[in-house]
Amino acid sequence: MAILETIDDPSAIRGLDTASLEQLCKELREYIIACCAENPGHIGSSLGAVEIAVAIHKVFDTPNDKVVWDVGHQAYAHKILTGRREAFRQNRKFGGISGFPRRDESPYDAFGVGHASTSISAALGMAVAAQLEGRNEHVIAVIGDGAMSGGLAFEGLNNAGSLNADLLVVLNDNQISIDMGSGALHKYLLKVTTDRRYNKLKKSVWDRLGSGRFRGWLQKVVKNTKRSLTPADSAALSLFDALGFRYFGPVDGNDIGEMTYMLQRLKHIPGPKLLHAITTKGKGYGPAENDQTVWHAPGTFDVETGRRTGSASGSAKFQQVFGETLLELARNDSRIVGITPAMATGCSMNIMQQEMPERVFDVGIAEEHAVTFSAGLAAEGMIPFCNIYSSFAQRAYDNVIHDVALQKLKVILCLDRSGIVGEDGATHQGAFDLAALRPVPNLTLAAPLDEASLRDMMYSATLDGYGPTVIRYPRGTGMGSEWRGRPFNYIEPGTAVKLHEGAGVALLSIGTAGAAGMKAVERAGKEKGVEVLHYDMRFLKPLDIKALEDACSKCSRIVTLEDGVTMGGLHGAVAEFIAARGLACTLVPLGIPDRFIEQGTPAQLHSDCGFDTDSVYKALLGENF
Amino acid sequence: MAILETIDDPSAIRGLDTASLEQLCKELREYIIACCAENPGHIGSSLGAVEIAVAIHKVFDTPNDKVVWDVGHQAYAHKILTGRREAFRQNRKFGGISGFPRRDESPYDAFGVGHASTSISAALGMAVAAQLEGRNEHVIAVIGDGAMSGGLAFEGLNNAGSLNADLLVVLNDNQISIDMGSGALHKYLLKVTTDRRYNKLKKSVWDRLGSGRFRGWLQKVVKNTKRSLTPADSAALSLFDALGFRYFGPVDGNDIGEMTYMLQRLKHIPGPKLLHAITTKGKGYGPAENDQTVWHAPGTFDVETGRRTGSASGSAKFQQVFGETLLELARNDSRIVGITPAMATGCSMNIMQQEMPERVFDVGIAEEHAVTFSAGLAAEGMIPFCNIYSSFAQRAYDNVIHDVALQKLKVILCLDRSGIVGEDGATHQGAFDLAALRPVPNLTLAAPLDEASLRDMMYSATLDGYGPTVIRYPRGTGMGSEWRGRPFNYIEPGTAVKLHEGAGVALLSIGTAGAAGMKAVERAGKEKGVEVLHYDMRFLKPLDIKALEDACSKCSRIVTLEDGVTMGGLHGAVAEFIAARGLACTLVPLGIPDRFIEQGTPAQLHSDCGFDTDSVYKALLGENF
Repeated sequence: MAILETIDDPSAIRGLDTASLEQLCKELREYIIACCAENPGHIGSSLGAVEIAVAIHKVFDTPNDKVVWDVGHQAYAHKILTGRREAFRQNRKFGGISGFPRRDESPYDAFGVGHASTSISAALGMAVAAQLEGRNEHVIAVIGDGAMSGGLAFEGLNNAGSLNADLLVVLNDNQISIDMGSGALHKYLLKVTTDRRYNKLKKSVWDRLGSGRFRGWLQKVVKNTKRSLTPADSAALSLFDALGFRYFGPVDGNDIGEMTYMLQRLKHIPGPKLLHAITTKGKGYGPAENDQTVWHAPGTFDVETGRRTGSASGSAKFQQVFGETLLELARNDSRIVGITPAMATGCSMNIMQQEMPERVFDVGIAEEHAVTFSAGLAAEGMIPFCNIYSSFAQRAYDNVIHDVALQKLKVILCLDRSGIVGEDGATHQGAFDLAALRPVPNLTLAAPLDEASLRDMMYSATLDGYGPTVIRYPRGTGMGSEWRGRPFNYIEPGTAVKLHEGAGVALLSIGTAGAAGMKAVERAGKEKGVEVLHYDMRFLKPLDIKALEDACSKCSRIVTLEDGVTMGGLHGAVAEFIAARGLACTLVPLGIPDRFIEQGTPAQLHSDCGFDTDSVYKALLGENF
Repeated sequence: MAILETIDDPSAIRGLDTASLEQLCKELREYIIACCAENPGHIGSSLGAVEIAVAIHKVFDTPNDKVVWDVGHQAYAHKILTGRREAFRQNRKFGGISGFPRRDESPYDAFGVGHASTSISAALGMAVAAQLEGRNEHVIAVIGDGAMSGGLAFEGLNNAGSLNADLLVVLNDNQISIDMGSGALHKYLLKVTTDRRYNKLKKSVWDRLGSGRFRGWLQKVVKNTKRSLTPADSAALSLFDALGFRYFGPVDGNDIGEMTYMLQRLKHIPGPKLLHAITTKGKGYGPAENDQTVWHAPGTFDVETGRRTGSASGSAKFQQVFGETLLELARNDSRIVGITPAMATGCSMNIMQQEMPERVFDVGIAEEHAVTFSAGLAAEGMIPFCNIYSSFAQRAYDNVIHDVALQKLKVILCLDRSGIVGEDGATHQGAFDLAALRPVPNLTLAAPLDEASLRDMMYSATLDGYGPTVIRYPRGTGMGSEWRGRPFNYIEPGTAVKLHEGAGVALLSIGTAGAAGMKAVERAGKEKGVEVLHYDMRFLKPLDIKALEDACSKCSRIVTLEDGVTMGGLHGAVAEFIAARGLACTLVPLGIPDRFIEQGTPAQLHSDCGFDTDSVYKALLGENF
């Protein structure tokens, strides 16, 4: 770490020669690998983007010049180079630094990120601001080929290409997002990259640029290059040229010499421009290069052997339940299809995909399209299971309202990673889904307490009693209830389950948060002799009115419990019920409070938010309210 | 109307020759003009798309073959041809037919629409379903060049281009959405269209196709055509080719002969394909062709003279207040910029645009980008006023959460067309904004009672006491309060205004719905001697706790009033307040109930939803609850 240890901020990079930069990249890789082996993170993308980060900080005057990292999980080298080398050991930890760039963490983090495809729009806003205020500032967006398939990225390109702001987009093309890319854009980029003419031209550009004397001369070369790349005929413009960008590349994005060389020259070309850099996800670490999907975020591992050492949990994750159940249902009903926006592995839809690839559609990072495409399928009689991570599904809010709910189309929207997700932090917590969707007419909103319920809810939603349905469940393992191979049980929409009889105080829970509730209820009985009436509501919509009436008639104190925002969520629904009847019940809201929740383990965050077992126990006994 | 009168469904079109089709198009135009002169609608787009509608129903076997009309306001000819000729006289009226295609209105309306850019995704879903189920079905998406700039359309293209479903996209390119198009895509299409080589080629294609013997032969011609249009070099693929579509055109979309001819041939070409049809918005009606922005939806008019006869209201619309105030604020603060997704005229940002065009950004139909772009501007110290119609802003839900609120960036998001919008119906009512945004931390949510409040809220939001702020207000006129030229007053966030002192029963209103509330309160006092405590809450977030405490201490009956969904809205917020304190107040929710609200006049719909003056009066007196 001879060089890396001397880099406390990017100014220390700017004097380094190419050999030293190569050494720096090597040390960065070793450091990222060593840290991530013990403290898991998004290692694959970040290893691929080391040279991009080093080259940008070498060539540009950060933080005066601005870099926006799309998604941001590829920005570990950037974090380490910008004063967070030691802090990186606490990456993604409670009280540590975020796994993504954040404006409040460093002046080098020009824009907070986490969700895909925002960088071009945000960077364009910055570039336009600099222009309006007459500041001489370079703005760079670094975006992966996966994120480029998101509609927002296209909207950004379309707008940028018609304005004359100085914006450099670095397309970090590793030809895989998490799973293999699948869209037309992906194929296009692959074609461009493998086309010999491009490669030949690339070389000739280097050779010509190599002779020195740039600026004015470069302009001419670049102009000639463009002329030879794309005939003058407007009909034959390439994709990015068509959108008003000057396209450069492809270059080897893992060659620090090539990258700095190219960025140095592009720095002086005005207007919107795109540099197509080809990188290898997991670059420099054999195991990660060889299985890029697994090594997107592999958990802990042994550096020497590449063996992943994450504790294999005894019980299956909700993702496994979803994946196996979907396949089982699909085998019995040919109308069932699966739709995922680039998360086939993450949500376990790859289980169905393996057996029936023609019935699973990985649409790329495109949540809006995923939902409207599902609505189209449903309009023609199919039963689409559309699986989206809860926080990403915020992108598809209008599509759920306008294309699914309004038309009462039977799309089964499964929101994975709902509630607290943990280490990915504020951008990824699935906090808002239930509250945002509750006011939408025609929807059934369900959240399983455990694995068996998820399975039964998925089954039930395919039957006639259900229209458009949302089923939300968290990341990871649950109570560990028996589910595999069990016969399916139909669950009627809007029916709660009484888990414990009691009076005086009631607990109304929805979803997996109810597990902590069950423990707290048991403890209240055992330790204090307080018998709590506990309902697993199962559905936020329709609400089980009988269960609410039962609770309100027996109890003057009602605790609501949910792994989501209380405001407008189950808490809101129960409050509306009580207030409409003028009942003098006191309601205690447990769930996600009115602030963004940063990174930490789920257990830490449940406790921080006040809905772990202890907090529920205290709330039931009135000790903390 | 000799021919039109004989067309009760599209089968009657299929036997007509070109001359008769031309006559039919002429009659359709006359009928649309005559109907819209008396009963206002989206005349411009629909006049431009007459030949597209006729040609599709002539060539394809609708409703077995499926047509998805993007946005759908261009589909009047389609509606008239598909059994709704007489019903069209009740277009957009309460109890009449919708101004947009709806699945529950006709089997010919394959997919409900209203918001832009959904058609390709939905049509792709249908095409894939047909393919999976082995049905021989053609699926056509008709999309305008404006809607093509939405990210969702790109996501659809990107996915379609990589699947092998039979999908025809008809790009209805009138080179204007409502205002003139502005993005790079717009420029690209213009270039393609005006390029002579294309036009020459177009002619040569016709000539060669004209000789008969198609199918196999056509394939060859088309292949040759493509070869000559786009060199074999993959680097030089055109935009749509790059996305996996076979591009055809441009053709004259207002030439019924050319359109039917081309569609007949494209029908037999498998896979994803795009026909670029150039049309004229307002085609066939001089005044509409000459001022396409005004004639997008001109209100009533005199057919002979083209004089618009809509009653000029005495007081200025909220849009005027927004537009003039924005300019006034921008004159005094160079950091203020305006952002609109293609609605500069509709929201009156054109007032600022005229005086300072370099500080207004019409980003095209791209709500997501509008918000994230605004966040980028704010990150660099600008104060962006981003104006989006409420129901369209559902598209930007994630951007508001992830890019604005989480980063506490001072974007002032003005939601125009909030609450009941009227004749545009279910897809356009701005029902969900307040409820969906309330759980989002860091936001200030404001809704003005009247014109003067809107002005003061806009001013206040630019000052230091405000972070990210949402100001929502309805379409059209309000109470008519004085505002123009008034000095600005600072409104502290989270402060309500007591409009009427009272006890026993309280009215808590937010936004313009409070105007009906004021009348009802006055009436209750005069007619029944009931003095109602009335607060204009002004802010849903932060809530004025003192006002709520005042109401709860004096009143056992509290009526909440809002032009938005009550579930999770102001009603939800007040219910949570009451329930947390265990108060035995009975809460009466007035606002938009839990169903989608169809078209009608705002007055009809306020009454239908139960929050017009009469309904409020009754609720205050406990007569209807």
